[in-house]
Amino acid sequence: MSQTTVREIHPNLYLLRVADTRTAYFEALWEIPEGVTYNAYLLKTPEGAVLFDGWKSVYQEAFLEALASLTPLEAIRHIVIHHMEPDHSGSLPALLDRLHGKVTLWGHPFTKKLLAALYGLTEIDFQAVKSGQSLTFGGHTLTFYHTPWLHWPETMVTHLAEGNLLLTGDIFGSFGLPEGIFDDEVDLQPYLDAARKYTISVIGFYRDKIVKHLTTLRDTYGVHPAMILPAHGLLWRQAPERIIQSYLNWAVGKPQPGKIAVLYSSMYRYVERGIGVLVDEFQRQGYTPVVHRMVDEERGSLADMLSDIVDSEAVVLGTETYEADVFPLTAFLLSEIIKKANFAKPLLVLGVFGWAPAAGRKLRGLLESSAFDPVHILELKGLLTGEGEAQIRAAVQEIVSHLAQTATTKV
Amino acid sequence: MSQTTVREIHPNLYLLRVADTRTAYFEALWEIPEGVTYNAYLLKTPEGAVLFDGWKSVYQEAFLEALASLTPLEAIRHIVIHHMEPDHSGSLPALLDRLHGKVTLWGHPFTKKLLAALYGLTEIDFQAVKSGQSLTFGGHTLTFYHTPWLHWPETMVTHLAEGNLLLTGDIFGSFGLPEGIFDDEVDLQPYLDAARKYTISVIGFYRDKIVKHLTTLRDTYGVHPAMILPAHGLLWRQAPERIIQSYLNWAVGKPQPGKIAVLYSSMYRYVERGIGVLVDEFQRQGYTPVVHRMVDEERGSLADMLSDIVDSEAVVLGTETYEADVFPLTAFLLSEIIKKANFAKPLLVLGVFGWAPAAGRKLRGLLESSAFDPVHILELKGLLTGEGEAQIRAAVQEIVSHLAQTATTKV
Repeated sequence: MSQTTVREIHPNLYLLRVADTRTAYFEALWEIPEGVTYNAYLLKTPEGAVLFDGWKSVYQEAFLEALASLTPLEAIRHIVIHHMEPDHSGSLPALLDRLHGKVTLWGHPFTKKLLAALYGLTEIDFQAVKSGQSLTFGGHTLTFYHTPWLHWPETMVTHLAEGNLLLTGDIFGSFGLPEGIFDDEVDLQPYLDAARKYTISVIGFYRDKIVKHLTTLRDTYGVHPAMILPAHGLLWRQAPERIIQSYLNWAVGKPQPGKIAVLYSSMYRYVERGIGVLVDEFQRQGYTPVVHRMVDEERGSLADMLSDIVDSEAVVLGTETYEADVFPLTAFLLSEIIKKANFAKPLLVLGVFGWAPAAGRKLRGLLESSAFDPVHILELKGLLTGEGEAQIRAAVQEIVSHLAQTATTKV
Repeated sequence: MSQTTVREIHPNLYLLRVADTRTAYFEALWEIPEGVTYNAYLLKTPEGAVLFDGWKSVYQEAFLEALASLTPLEAIRHIVIHHMEPDHSGSLPALLDRLHGKVTLWGHPFTKKLLAALYGLTEIDFQAVKSGQSLTFGGHTLTFYHTPWLHWPETMVTHLAEGNLLLTGDIFGSFGLPEGIFDDEVDLQPYLDAARKYTISVIGFYRDKIVKHLTTLRDTYGVHPAMILPAHGLLWRQAPERIIQSYLNWAVGKPQPGKIAVLYSSMYRYVERGIGVLVDEFQRQGYTPVVHRMVDEERGSLADMLSDIVDSEAVVLGTETYEADVFPLTAFLLSEIIKKANFAKPLLVLGVFGWAPAAGRKLRGLLESSAFDPVHILELKGLLTGEGEAQIRAAVQEIVSHLAQTATTKV
């Protein structure tokens, strides 16, 4: 049970958090050696308890135990479902079994269909809520706001008037197993790196909705929470505006000055030698390249690669030509970049071929459907020569000039 | 040095083998927890030595040591290059440095260009050979045959008249670190599984050339070797015809009776439950499903998945709908299948969606460019129901009938 945390985080409001160390690939896709938490919340009132979300089904027994340590289960009168993704709803059927139906479920109207589709739950008391609708219960006022596609279609958040708390589901969540539970208990910088990785990989496909819904919450509904309580990772009580602003920055790909994402594959290290020169030239120009490689001895993490694109000023893709095409993992990476982290950033391609160039042309084609600006596509043959090195340095300088011009234009 | 094996395998002919345990991904792409060997060969004659191929550059010092244990380096008069891929040619520049140019290199005409492109080697004595051309040296006759695209464009093999030996480069190679060096020293069945995996992943893109060149060698040139000496894995002295026939079978995807390859991704185990029913139904029908999964806790090996398609009677692809598309890893898998293991086999798709179907339609589109016959594309919503289970069993029965009909037609 050491992986479970149960803590009162505000008068009568409890966090129930579990540390998932079994999942190697979140959504079966994103590498998370850092792990992930599932955060549910329980509000205790004189009239009974309100539960917000739950845990993944593999932890359902631990979840019921944690709940039972706080309240008799039959005292749970309401369950609020912020979205139906099974990492939060997986424990629901087991809980409902124990409650014998004497509970009301609250959610976005579409949640009802997913309760039936994902769990066969049809004989339930379900209350579909409109955006802005409130529930008053046990002296508390809960107001629900729809935030569709963050990151499922039926997503909503809940505002608790007492304490001005916002329960946000996946929004403002992160990967990682933080040592503390609040933002003021940990070193925030590495945590924010994990949060950026979570945001772009899990929510990146819908990142325009981040700006839209956060703006609506703030400007239309006037929600300025004192505390943000997400369904993954840290709770934000000291600096909720910091995670809000971070999410807004990541949604639009706001760069950290000087950061360059360098992502390459190299079968036999021909690309790698060129990347060595390229990294050196970026450093000479005062930039900070962050490098991920897919080579014979190791394979960089797809989620980390996407994440480092988000706050880079420019992106470098290195690839060898493989069977008259882009190296397969690079093509796969690019397809994920275009889906998840498709930003209007300058891009430099470094291709290396053995007997015939192909990767550069193919990459140019793939990039046409993207927001990236392929400033320079350089293809070199085989072993790096002095001439090749000069071409690489010139290409880097072209990117640097491009960035300088853009910066000037923006001023 | 325990990873190095030096052994006389025929009078005056020596194997120099190194066990590569550092490479996690062959070609930076194929998962090889089983490792791989690089096999070079040295023929000693009264007039000097002939070297065939070499090792990867990371092992070049060990290679020079192994060579020096057999012969003074300056006694090496000829180097035969079967193809230029760096896992065999990587040690060449270091060796040539020691020989001060007093050696003749033999290869396919295009090899000269790759020596320049990959290593900057231009000041060399290079002899381009025609297919069928011989070299007589030190009482031995070496005959070279071009086998282009197996698996590089400049590939050739060498026949040694004395002993009727065939040195085949990548052809008849395999992954794995066999305990013995000859085919009669190990349990062949698991080794052949690794060889099938090697063949389809590394050479699969050019598998029509396997049939073409092996047929030409046998029927046009009358080559029926007593011993096959590849550049990876086991040497074949007891049953060379077994590896030849295996390669021919794999090139055309000849099935093992009853084998079904089942490959699926499942984020939250919805597909997995359907696959459970499907596997059960195949087993009830007397078939043997071989299952690979890409889920939260583990990810199957791409190379193993391709390999199990080769000798299956039919293929099952399971996927969830993800962001209105096929799950990304399944789409990537299918693109590799179509490049490497594109066989005219019946295929069953099992798709599961949460709120809107998409994977089935998209997969149908992707499959149009393939040789597979998508006999049944079944898409189910959410939780497996009794009706869904019946549909899965019916789909399996449809595949089974299809296989039975094909078998009848073939008889």
